[in-house]
Amino acid sequence: MDGQARTSGRVTLSAVAAEAGVSLSTISKVLNGRADVAPGTRARIEQLFEQYGYTRRAAATQRSTLLEVVFHELESPWALEIIRGAEAVARERGMSIVLTESGDLHSPGSEWIEGVLQRRPAGVVLVVSDLDPGHKTQLRSRGIPFAIVDPGGDPSPDVPSVGSANWSGGLAATRHLLELGHRRIAAITGPAELMCSMARLDGFRSAMHAAGVAVDPDLVEFGDFHVDGGRRIALRMLERDDRPTAIFAGSDLQALGVFDAARMLGLSVPRDVSVVGYDDLPLAEWSSPRLTTVHQPLREMAETAARLVLDPQDDGAPARLDLATALVVRDSTAPLASPA
Amino acid sequence: MDGQARTSGRVTLSAVAAEAGVSLSTISKVLNGRADVAPGTRARIEQLFEQYGYTRRAAATQRSTLLEVVFHELESPWALEIIRGAEAVARERGMSIVLTESGDLHSPGSEWIEGVLQRRPAGVVLVVSDLDPGHKTQLRSRGIPFAIVDPGGDPSPDVPSVGSANWSGGLAATRHLLELGHRRIAAITGPAELMCSMARLDGFRSAMHAAGVAVDPDLVEFGDFHVDGGRRIALRMLERDDRPTAIFAGSDLQALGVFDAARMLGLSVPRDVSVVGYDDLPLAEWSSPRLTTVHQPLREMAETAARLVLDPQDDGAPARLDLATALVVRDSTAPLASPA
Repeated sequence: MDGQARTSGRVTLSAVAAEAGVSLSTISKVLNGRADVAPGTRARIEQLFEQYGYTRRAAATQRSTLLEVVFHELESPWALEIIRGAEAVARERGMSIVLTESGDLHSPGSEWIEGVLQRRPAGVVLVVSDLDPGHKTQLRSRGIPFAIVDPGGDPSPDVPSVGSANWSGGLAATRHLLELGHRRIAAITGPAELMCSMARLDGFRSAMHAAGVAVDPDLVEFGDFHVDGGRRIALRMLERDDRPTAIFAGSDLQALGVFDAARMLGLSVPRDVSVVGYDDLPLAEWSSPRLTTVHQPLREMAETAARLVLDPQDDGAPARLDLATALVVRDSTAPLASPA
Repeated sequence: MDGQARTSGRVTLSAVAAEAGVSLSTISKVLNGRADVAPGTRARIEQLFEQYGYTRRAAATQRSTLLEVVFHELESPWALEIIRGAEAVARERGMSIVLTESGDLHSPGSEWIEGVLQRRPAGVVLVVSDLDPGHKTQLRSRGIPFAIVDPGGDPSPDVPSVGSANWSGGLAATRHLLELGHRRIAAITGPAELMCSMARLDGFRSAMHAAGVAVDPDLVEFGDFHVDGGRRIALRMLERDDRPTAIFAGSDLQALGVFDAARMLGLSVPRDVSVVGYDDLPLAEWSSPRLTTVHQPLREMAETAARLVLDPQDDGAPARLDLATALVVRDSTAPLASPA
């Protein structure tokens, strides 16, 4: 109701209404994500917003005290770390966070964006690999700043996003194993289509190459980030006569799967096989033995994305930040045992 | 601004304003949690609300699409399960959840309640053991329904709350171990001041008693719900010459501590010692061996509390529901080995 006929410096809402052949009240409904507009009309108006680059001025809307965090799914063990990061930034400003689940990873429905447009939060942090161009336009035209927390590592160039140094993480994990004397080192990584999997694996390869150690192609596998996948792949590797003495797993959950595979085969971690994980979730400290892993600063990534959103930079260029990763050495890695 | 001079059937806001000697606008500010009211004035008005049992009529406020979930701290591995339960109920109604952290368990500050009063959510789910009487009055006088998710098991009689069957959980865990032939069974439980710890331990004692098995007082200890505490207590028990053949731990995290203690002593789970946990967090399926544990339906508890809040019952009596717990048998328990 209060978004009528303000200029964005380029086009007035009256002009959009005239061109679309609708009333200003219909324009207002579309701006505010109200449901009672025919889909065709809504699409035509959104298209005009995009065409004219319409942007609601931030000062024109009342300052919200809500920071919205949108997940594809709350299932992930990452979710709580990210929530805590966003919550900390919201709290220091007297704001609260709203959580939304957008549904399927590859085709998020439209419901979540309508909710966002209705609530008009001060900003939106999205935990997704990428955002539908139409959704970007909708958020921009309403003057709602947004940024992506992107553990997958595949940022769109036109969206502010925060990731972490995946390649360096893979390098650090592998160097640690090399320094312990391991040479026959396996890598189990995440899905081949995720940039983070490829970056971590490239870090692994570079560390091996720099140390003059050949990578056995039989000891490199793409998998998923779950316990079962880690167990399955590790079983296959550890049942070989020339089994690896160390495994770099693509996630902490995968590493727990490697632990279980070792246990099933009567092998001891780290005596018979060293294991490095990735993520450093709280469970890495709770496992037995405690897991050596690469710390991915999920909480700080969410904090940084929340700050990008709440203190937008006016230099025009979307920020892309990769926060540092760091190896955390615990009890699941040990020097290579001398041959009996 | 829109809460002026409506009757609750008992007292008008004008009457409260007159008695407090303030303007209606000040009354409105207090009702809506605005900060710009002197603390003494606020306290006097709140006291009058309480004295007269003032309740804002639900219909008088615009229907919010926010369901607020208040945690003392988001640290808990429980938190994500509870968030997911509340989020599911919110989503099926086209609502979103707002997360608030209220701070310290024993003396939550006043900031969180002011935020709630300002946002005027459709309802509040509190994950706390109990609620300050003043906060109850404030929520009631604003017509904001609330319910407690109470894993601690110590409900206030005047607040709707949802817990779970702790005593039955302790009984089921212990019966399972008895049926496997164990007699020398230890119990590590949570803090002595939490009702849930006492209820689970009483369930343990009753199962032992019903089976005619004496409880060795040296094998019963109160602890905390964390890994380190479980490890410490289990080490002490497992180093005894007459060590237990089975341990019932008060939480899944404690059980992981027991796993680690066994590992440090060269004992195998479940061959040398059977372990049962409590909670059935996702990590219970990720541990090695997979953890036999008592399922505490945290997600359903949050769903139920959310429904209590969003569909308030009008029969006057605050609901107290305990949802069922259930034993989930996995790989950390085994029949008592025959003596060598």
